[in-house]
Amino acid sequence: MFIGRVVGSLWATRKTDNTTGVKFLIVQPYNLNKAPNTDTVVAADVLGAGEGELVMVAYGRAARIAVGNEDMSIEAAITGIIDEYEVKPEHYKGDLDPEKSVYKKSLE
Amino acid sequence: MFIGRVVGSLWATRKTDNTTGVKFLIVQPYNLNKAPNTDTVVAADVLGAGEGELVMVAYGRAARIAVGNEDMSIEAAITGIIDEYEVKPEHYKGDLDPEKSVYKKSLE
Amino acid sequence: MFIGRVVGSLWATRKTDNTTGVKFLIVQPYNLNKAPNTDTVVAADVLGAGEGELVMVAYGRAARIAVGNEDMSIEAAITGIIDEYEVKPEHYKGDLDPEKSVYKKSLE
Amino acid sequence: MFIGRVVGSLWATRKTDNTTGVKFLIVQPYNLNKAPNTDTVVAADVLGAGEGELVMVAYGRAARIAVGNEDMSIEAAITGIIDEYEVKPEHYKGDLDPEKSVYKKSLE
Amino acid sequence: MFIGRVVGSLWATRKTDNTTGVKFLIVQPYNLNKAPNTDTVVAADVLGAGEGELVMVAYGRAARIAVGNEDMSIEAAITGIIDEYEVKPEHYKGDLDPEKSVYKKSLE
Repeated sequence: MFIGRVVGSLWATRKTDNTTGVKFLIVQPYNLNKAPNTDTVVAADVLGAGEGELVMVAYGRAARIAVGNEDMSIEAAITGIIDEYEVKPEHYKGDLDPEKSVYKKSLE
Repeated sequence: MFIGRVVGSLWATRKTDNTTGVKFLIVQPYNLNKAPNTDTVVAADVLGAGEGELVMVAYGRAARIAVGNEDMSIEAAITGIIDEYEVKPEHYKGDLDPEKSVYKKSLE
Repeated sequence: MFIGRVVGSLWATRKTDNTTGVKFLIVQPYNLNKAPNTDTVVAADVLGAGEGELVMVAYGRAARIAVGNEDMSIEAAITGIIDEYEVKPEHYKGDLDPEKSVYKKSLE
Repeated sequence: MFIGRVVGSLWATRKTDNTTGVKFLIVQPYNLNKAPNTDTVVAADVLGAGEGELVMVAYGRAARIAVGNEDMSIEAAITGIIDEYEVKPEHYKGDLDPEKSVYKKSLE
Repeated sequence: MFIGRVVGSLWATRKTDNTTGVKFLIVQPYNLNKAPNTDTVVAADVLGAGEGELVMVAYGRAARIAVGNEDMSIEAAITGIIDEYEVKPEHYKGDLDPEKSVYKKSLE
């Protein structure tokens, strides 16, 4: 899994039938240094993640388990909405963004 | 899944028997900043995506579910044709292309 | 799946028993711009792809379906030999190599 | 699998029900040269890995086997806590960090 | 699959029970140009690959088939020890290392 931030939403009318009713969010993987991650991922969401929230995203069968239907043509899904994380600067190698060593959703 | 743009088509006569009749499209992953993505993906399509359209692409079993036959030797498929997406610039980190923050297919 | 070019062959005497008789080719992923792709992939082949040919390659279960034996320890395989492809320059973002917008095997 | 270092922890209250009670760690992939790896991975842990420890991480079904429940929506997990490794400088190509050719946890 | 070189070994006492007795090797993916590949992979080995040998590595279910036990929490394994490979310089795009166009283990 990886940490991402919900940056937007996506709508498709013509799609595989089995995903009718599923919400698709655009998620930007989240780096702990200051370099932005330029790729984005489209993830199914059944947890009600809001824009700007940090989330955990999983690929493959884990994603289909997360949406509760293993016969959906879904390959990525949000498996958790992050409340809090903590990174120890002494263990992280590289240029950790000091503002990213601790995150508490309640303080955002 | 990821967002891509259909940039072309591909034909193969000598191929695994189980994929006879399947259409293969060349898809370029789509970045929200101005940097182009140089890799392309070959995706099976049963939705009738046209050249230039933005699509959702899935890998693995999700792709085989999308084409409706899990015994095909297919590893990537188009799972939706995107009508619209919206990205919030305040959440996206990095150099968002302003022309890419909102997309409406009906306006293309 | 992705487009690759067969650049060589590989032989291994000590290998998992279940792959006896399978041919392994070295494939270089193929970019549509002028930048070469420096990684290579080892793909099983049962279609008889020749050196220099453009092929489609699939990973995972799709590869095992392609070789016709899902109990082989194979993770990548050639699923088609490309006869022709066409890329529309107006849809491709980035520095498309003009010589790569159309490919016809019969003209190589 | 890959070698990573546990750099932090992550908490999510709203998550897929099936992962209740699972601990999630933030792991930074570990390079043998001096260049830091800027991406991080979120991995489930049932082995009790501590911050700063070097671990093996696996993706996919291997991760669900590692946590002992294949119906969890988990895509990455810690499969071992590394006691020791040894890299032969004569075989490694590139700029091996001399301090990383041998690792013994007991000496850290 | 990909070509890699065995550069070292790894030991873990605290690990998932199901992998007891499996040997873990550190493998560096092998490029055909002169640029080293900085990432390494941890692969299970039941073929007895030695340090410095070139090997084929597979991910996912193929890896579990290779170790002969699909219920092990293993995601990468060595599936062959390479005796010989040959790359045709006229098909490889980019800066092929001339010393890498042909490899014969018996000559190393």
